[in-house]
Amino acid sequence: MASLLPSALPQPLPAPASPEQLEELACDLRAAGLMPLRSSGELEPLAADAFVYSPVLQPLLQGLRAQLGVRASSAEEVLAVAAACVRHQVSLTVRGAGTGNYGQAVPLAGGLVLELGGLKQLRQLEAGSGVFTAEAGILLADLEQQLQARGRELRLVPSTVRSASLAGYLAGGSSGIGSLRWGFLRDPGHLLALEVVTLEPQPRLLQLNAAAAQAINHAYGCNGIITAATLASAPAVPWQQLVLEFESWDQALTAAQRLPATALLLNALCVLEAPVAALLPWPHGCPAASGQAHRLLLLAAPDVLPALEALLPQLGGSLIWQAPQGQSRGIPLRELCWNHTTLHARAHDPGFTYLQLLLPQAERPALEALRLRWGDDVLWHLEAVRAQGQQRLACLPLVRWRGRDALEDLIRHACDLGCLLFNPHAITVEDGGLGGVDAEQVAAKASYDPAGLLNPGKLRGWLER
Amino acid sequence: MASLLPSALPQPLPAPASPEQLEELACDLRAAGLMPLRSSGELEPLAADAFVYSPVLQPLLQGLRAQLGVRASSAEEVLAVAAACVRHQVSLTVRGAGTGNYGQAVPLAGGLVLELGGLKQLRQLEAGSGVFTAEAGILLADLEQQLQARGRELRLVPSTVRSASLAGYLAGGSSGIGSLRWGFLRDPGHLLALEVVTLEPQPRLLQLNAAAAQAINHAYGCNGIITAATLASAPAVPWQQLVLEFESWDQALTAAQRLPATALLLNALCVLEAPVAALLPWPHGCPAASGQAHRLLLLAAPDVLPALEALLPQLGGSLIWQAPQGQSRGIPLRELCWNHTTLHARAHDPGFTYLQLLLPQAERPALEALRLRWGDDVLWHLEAVRAQGQQRLACLPLVRWRGRDALEDLIRHACDLGCLLFNPHAITVEDGGLGGVDAEQVAAKASYDPAGLLNPGKLRGWLER
Repeated sequence: MASLLPSALPQPLPAPASPEQLEELACDLRAAGLMPLRSSGELEPLAADAFVYSPVLQPLLQGLRAQLGVRASSAEEVLAVAAACVRHQVSLTVRGAGTGNYGQAVPLAGGLVLELGGLKQLRQLEAGSGVFTAEAGILLADLEQQLQARGRELRLVPSTVRSASLAGYLAGGSSGIGSLRWGFLRDPGHLLALEVVTLEPQPRLLQLNAAAAQAINHAYGCNGIITAATLASAPAVPWQQLVLEFESWDQALTAAQRLPATALLLNALCVLEAPVAALLPWPHGCPAASGQAHRLLLLAAPDVLPALEALLPQLGGSLIWQAPQGQSRGIPLRELCWNHTTLHARAHDPGFTYLQLLLPQAERPALEALRLRWGDDVLWHLEAVRAQGQQRLACLPLVRWRGRDALEDLIRHACDLGCLLFNPHAITVEDGGLGGVDAEQVAAKASYDPAGLLNPGKLRGWLER
Repeated sequence: MASLLPSALPQPLPAPASPEQLEELACDLRAAGLMPLRSSGELEPLAADAFVYSPVLQPLLQGLRAQLGVRASSAEEVLAVAAACVRHQVSLTVRGAGTGNYGQAVPLAGGLVLELGGLKQLRQLEAGSGVFTAEAGILLADLEQQLQARGRELRLVPSTVRSASLAGYLAGGSSGIGSLRWGFLRDPGHLLALEVVTLEPQPRLLQLNAAAAQAINHAYGCNGIITAATLASAPAVPWQQLVLEFESWDQALTAAQRLPATALLLNALCVLEAPVAALLPWPHGCPAASGQAHRLLLLAAPDVLPALEALLPQLGGSLIWQAPQGQSRGIPLRELCWNHTTLHARAHDPGFTYLQLLLPQAERPALEALRLRWGDDVLWHLEAVRAQGQQRLACLPLVRWRGRDALEDLIRHACDLGCLLFNPHAITVEDGGLGGVDAEQVAAKASYDPAGLLNPGKLRGWLER
């Protein structure tokens, strides 16, 4: 059986650019008014992301660097960079803020890294519909602030909302805070249009509608350079951060199943098993975790409280802390959940790695089987999500690293129990998703990047075509 | 096997009030500054609702009248009426706007009918949370208008939103427009508190929290008189009315399953089989129904359009009409769906009655088995709802009346296929719901109406205790 965990980089990869190619490319960039970045002090940060969470990816991606870097601030500059790369046949890897977890923007074969942090304008917000168009590199926190000033908010954000960029999230992310209400980033209705630069001798600036944009969504920048995106937003809600405690794991799990099935307006629900809760920093004023009680974190509308107080005695939980989001001191709850849980746990003990699973329904038997077999080597962290119109539980367990074989055994056990794997120990778009090749993604690459220069090695369907 | 369809009124029922009792009651009412209504011209409209949709209920409920009527305009007046009824041991049936479908407010044993249309104030709307408190008799349309002026809207409304009252909907309704997003009225999170008058020698005005209020919710006014309710609202959305057409029933059904499983923000989704669509009046400007194409009605946020246009070719549907809600001429879409579909069809042909079912999952096999066996005697009308955190399809088919036995066969067939019945041909709270006695409803009646004077005959658990 083929291993689920890569032991080498995908192949074939192009050769790195020659010194002559690089020199000519740098010359063209300068001619376009752009500043080529060449020192290792400049190039090293342009290759960093959180792939170090994975002891599988870490030895493969560590030390990979672009040969040249450049920052663009407008779609015109991106067009110039694209034209120069095609002219000199140098591969191009696009980078947002570098908050990916699987090396989405780590260049596997050198070449140029294009950083889009300078494309940071909110171009438009339609007051009636809340539909907005913003540039690729805008930080989600900045975007959120501008939307909130007009009574709107982002539907979905990652736990890295303070540092992540919009197009980086679209190209490399899949879900996050808000997925309990709004599902996954790829679900129709979120992404309404994209502005994309192609890698052709005469690069085009395309305006893709919702249907055409889907092939570029979550494609790691392999099949077009996103310069702007049009998305649906939501009316802003003054979310309250609530921390509940449960003595029993069974009750915590029941609450995580029942609360999303009520009419309580929740934006996130995260369950942390007691030993996980004990590894995290907590907001000022929130009692420290005892290591005995399990914690359930909620982002809840203010109208939730009366009904929640009526339910809590039935659920066996107690409310131990609450504060409006954005008004508490210390770490906010949304930086304790999703992949930030893993981040904090690893800050405590880098011997932890993690997984990303969607639990089957019914959840309890699968979870119990996993808990029974893996004991203290796997600590449980659940996130409630909406998937295909159903309330489900995702889980991002902390996994004590015992080597590749043990991790692969755990993954196979979870899959045998009906879990759906979103493998964070994979390099390609497909292996990090559901495994299958998406013909539309490959077709988009053939149209928009016929020479295969964009982020080489990341689209398995292109390598295997 | 016991029949699912009543052939007589529930028993035991109290005797009607004697002329002396009525005289003394009327005297007390006048002393409290209230005007007793006694003429048949006054009493007849106080016993009307849409039970005529049911050929089972029609012969049982037709002609039942209160012996006395009264209108109250304040909680104080309700307290006075309650005290007078207890003093003279006259039964009391509370009435909102009379838009129930199963005789919820039809007095089975004479006595007094108390009409609450005078309690019509929006008492409070908290700007931060959107939580509001309004009086029992306020019309939903008036309430909606006041909320919308402050950027909020009701989460759930019936198709009778223009004529129904708030407490009538809570006491007699269960779902409606908005159930696609927000589930059912009884789901925790909607009803946050109730103000209730008890039927005791010294009637109390109780403030019930969310937990205590649940027993009064959907109890037909059997266990307390609601004088005000506190509910969660939603941020107002400028809903767009969309009419889609599908040539094939299979495609229409697939669309009804898939659209609620996307991230499109929808407030209602109604499917009308071609012959049903042909029976309905359509808004000005909307093409008349051909009788060949099936129609899917959507209330959709304005941001839905780009993504919907991308999906429609895959779904095999076409958008034939759109207009903002509240700005189209003629009948609005929300008065074509839920029980209004039945209303319009019966206006065309009173030989139709109806059912209310929640389809099992998977829906298609059950629906196909029903369509195959019942042919043109049952025409299909589906409503997408959220039930227990899952997107499901309810259905309110139009049923050609062929007598009690045929209706009972249809019901048993549907239940054998896994449908959940919400029987609109039933008189009691329980028989119109899931059939089981709710001990908390009965306990609330024992506490708040110990003499059993409220809406006698409607709570089976009380009759059987």
